[in-house]
Amino acid sequence: MRVMGVDPGLTRAGFAVVEESGGKLKALEFGTVRAAGEDVPAQLADLRARLAQAVDRHRPEAMAVERLFVTRNQRTAIRVGQASAMALLVAAEGGIPVTEYGPLQVKQAVVGVGSATKDQVSFMVGRLLGLTEKPDTADASDALALAICHLHSYRLAVKAAAR
Amino acid sequence: MRVMGVDPGLTRAGFAVVEESGGKLKALEFGTVRAAGEDVPAQLADLRARLAQAVDRHRPEAMAVERLFVTRNQRTAIRVGQASAMALLVAAEGGIPVTEYGPLQVKQAVVGVGSATKDQVSFMVGRLLGLTEKPDTADASDALALAICHLHSYRLAVKAAAR
Repeated sequence: MRVMGVDPGLTRAGFAVVEESGGKLKALEFGTVRAAGEDVPAQLADLRARLAQAVDRHRPEAMAVERLFVTRNQRTAIRVGQASAMALLVAAEGGIPVTEYGPLQVKQAVVGVGSATKDQVSFMVGRLLGLTEKPDTADASDALALAICHLHSYRLAVKAAAR
Repeated sequence: MRVMGVDPGLTRAGFAVVEESGGKLKALEFGTVRAAGEDVPAQLADLRARLAQAVDRHRPEAMAVERLFVTRNQRTAIRVGQASAMALLVAAEGGIPVTEYGPLQVKQAVVGVGSATKDQVSFMVGRLLGLTEKPDTADASDALALAICHLHSYRLAVKAAAR
């Protein structure tokens, strides 16, 4: 099972592709997309193109995208929502089922507690995947965590169905 | 000058194409897109495809999209933001400059007062364009108003530059 995780953002988005095979997790690629463009529409188009390229490279069977919450800065929230729409669109156009997970679910799945810090998430992600190279940003680390979270949920669903 | 107006929404979006020629305004097409799909990603993909088709039919030189505000329902706000991202993406990919206008600016341009009601907007839009057929939804009427608002701003900018 191969899953792509996306932590959306207009000027900085994390993406990751994680494969589970024989109970072992492996990161095939992860990184940070810094969308280029002189305005929001151009940045959205660039983000979309680069996420679509990652899908073409790895052909993931599922996508996991961070679910958004509107917090303090509502202007930022709308822009993040627009960035997340690029991930949802790329998934739909590639025929890839996509699931949205909240930060709490992701931390719970990766660290075991919903109140985990960014550093704890990054540490556990590195350990679970046996990474020799640390993710360059918290966004990339979160994207890896999203993919792991989805694989975890999927495994539990398969187990529940087998009972 | 030919302008496409888009009032974004996930399950219901208004679109319109208005042309100004020799000081006269003419609606070339307007209507409501009800995106089809079993989930949000599929609906976004359908909305994108249908806006892209409208662009292909009319080749507008500019696009005007309603600027979003986060109000009471934040969940809805994120979905509307994602829908608006489809319009911005279609514009960027078609090389069409896009401007976002707030509801206040649009009402000011079309009715003359920022506090105008939906009915007043619809009435003035019908009068300015000499419509024989009424827009089927407030979304379609708002899309026409957005296009008129952009043509109005454009005319003022040209006049100011000519001084």
